[in-house]
Amino acid sequence: MKKKVATLNETLPTKALPDWPTLGSGEPHDFNVFSVQRVDRRSPRTGRVGSYRVIHAPDWVNVVALTSDRNLVLVEQYRHGLDRVTLEVPGGMVDPGESSADAAARELAEETGYVGSAPEPIGLVHPNPAIQTNRCTSWLIEDARHEHEPRPDEGEHIQVVEVPLRDIEEHVRRGAITHSLVICAFYWLRLHG
Amino acid sequence: MKKKVATLNETLPTKALPDWPTLGSGEPHDFNVFSVQRVDRRSPRTGRVGSYRVIHAPDWVNVVALTSDRNLVLVEQYRHGLDRVTLEVPGGMVDPGESSADAAARELAEETGYVGSAPEPIGLVHPNPAIQTNRCTSWLIEDARHEHEPRPDEGEHIQVVEVPLRDIEEHVRRGAITHSLVICAFYWLRLHG
Repeated sequence: MKKKVATLNETLPTKALPDWPTLGSGEPHDFNVFSVQRVDRRSPRTGRVGSYRVIHAPDWVNVVALTSDRNLVLVEQYRHGLDRVTLEVPGGMVDPGESSADAAARELAEETGYVGSAPEPIGLVHPNPAIQTNRCTSWLIEDARHEHEPRPDEGEHIQVVEVPLRDIEEHVRRGAITHSLVICAFYWLRLHG
Repeated sequence: MKKKVATLNETLPTKALPDWPTLGSGEPHDFNVFSVQRVDRRSPRTGRVGSYRVIHAPDWVNVVALTSDRNLVLVEQYRHGLDRVTLEVPGGMVDPGESSADAAARELAEETGYVGSAPEPIGLVHPNPAIQTNRCTSWLIEDARHEHEPRPDEGEHIQVVEVPLRDIEEHVRRGAITHSLVICAFYWLRLHG
């Protein structure tokens, strides 16, 4: 029962599996920063129709901001999901009509008061293909420097901390940074070199 | 306006910011694989009370399964959030009363028909501390081998593909693998060595 091994010459995912036809959907339940919608889809394998729930949200960005002396600009902030203070890179939602790059520079400025070079995209992930429709792009901003006071939203309470880039893996290993999308940003930064 | 730089001697996050007191909460809206709940919390910064929405879900696991010839066991499957077929490591929800390790071995067997060594935890992330309460643990299973036919759930349609571990970064770079929690599993695998 040896399985086929895919080489780099193949496009992955393969085209072996079909998509599931969507037969209907419900009205989205609006929860402010996201909404939940029922979709009815037919399984090509069983032929049966099932109802599934998907979460719509604006696309997200996060920002790897590096100072000229190779420190990362991080934020500590209270997070409602975990009900505690976390350590993360700056980030947030792309506003309607805003570009992802502009959102990256805006979130960095609002959350930290830092500005820097033009944002460069280093990678894109889907936060959760199983239930979410949106994307998160990681942006690199270099020569980051503190220029003004942060301008947090009503729902934010933030403390800025610089951390040497060389220490990041050790902080992740210790569990100081656990946000999946932040760890993806670090993954992209390493691939970017 | 030079910011403090945190050394490895410090515990991060610092204790600079307080948590937000929870003053009340609503009945959870049940959406089957997750639920959404309103929580009312007071900002220590502004003193104002706001309503926020959090998503409760069971803890999740994903599995880095390596064959004896250093191939990763991956799954292609249709995903309702993205409405297309993705390439991922096996994974899923921890069942009530089940250990995270048992969930890892079970998901690997159900989705792929592979079995292997006792699962070893290599890292834990929070999928989204801003809005989600749950965790995702990555497990390493070595000496993975195909032993039986997969046993997919009603809502699954899966194709197994083995990919040489040495090619994984290139597949991520090409955008063949975009699931944030899968990329975190690869991050943990590299730290694990």
